[in-house]
Amino acid sequence: MKSMFEYNWQVRNEWFSWCEEVPKEELLKERIGGVGGILKTLYHIIDVEYSWICEMQGQIPKKQEFHAPFESWATLEKMKDLSNLYHQKVIDFVLAWDPKMEQEYITEQNADGEIEIFKFGEIMRHVIAHEIHHIGQLSVWSRELGKKPVTANLIRRGLF
Amino acid sequence: MKSMFEYNWQVRNEWFSWCEEVPKEELLKERIGGVGGILKTLYHIIDVEYSWICEMQGQIPKKQEFHAPFESWATLEKMKDLSNLYHQKVIDFVLAWDPKMEQEYITEQNADGEIEIFKFGEIMRHVIAHEIHHIGQLSVWSRELGKKPVTANLIRRGLF
Repeated sequence: MKSMFEYNWQVRNEWFSWCEEVPKEELLKERIGGVGGILKTLYHIIDVEYSWICEMQGQIPKKQEFHAPFESWATLEKMKDLSNLYHQKVIDFVLAWDPKMEQEYITEQNADGEIEIFKFGEIMRHVIAHEIHHIGQLSVWSRELGKKPVTANLIRRGLF
Repeated sequence: MKSMFEYNWQVRNEWFSWCEEVPKEELLKERIGGVGGILKTLYHIIDVEYSWICEMQGQIPKKQEFHAPFESWATLEKMKDLSNLYHQKVIDFVLAWDPKMEQEYITEQNADGEIEIFKFGEIMRHVIAHEIHHIGQLSVWSRELGKKPVTANLIRRGLF
């Protein structure tokens, strides 16, 4: 579990470095697919990871957005700050993860008024898969820009 | 571990269904990013998963390609056949997975002549992340085609 979060954080930071070499207009440009842009994708990844971790800690409703909207974080430097701002809480939760937490759960009312149950083990894997999926989208946009994407390889990262 | 493989197999099958409604020219069309096309991506996912599983079983070198090249499997029906053909071996390995296998390893000589060590736990997570990453690329191409992509959500799949 921890190694896959570590993987995502490494890859995310490599994408931040990749962004350094891309004009800011391209980072903000509206694109087809996913949430529609490079910086928006990074924002969305940070948002979703943080929100689920908070919800497992019983702190904020998952659907509650950041107090500041995307537009307030819409530069590369601010996005890195946002990632760092929430990282400590996320890392504390992930590093404290214990298999005993697998079966803990939260409940949530969906749009149809039904109560849904999400186990912590399910949420953690959802968060992992969520980031990897969106990073795959960045890799297509990278090639559209004529740039080599960050490697998605999980091997050769010193994680094991 | 098992749940993330199950997730990938569910999503893969949903992409096969998605492909049913797409003209075959679009499935074969060369695209920017990833391995360059929709069916090619599915082939690559199947290839990589199967090859690593075989290598952990000591059966074939990972780099050995399928005996038949992509062109021999380049229809939706054949690609589904290919996925099914190799699935039993993959599923047997995954379902027999035991945390004790985490530290088992294989060695491989890389292009520089250096010996690399890959632990089974590392390989398994690499295979999981590999498929999710490439599926993210399919989702962009889906939107380019004006079609809704298969959901990447891991929650609400009855996996937990």
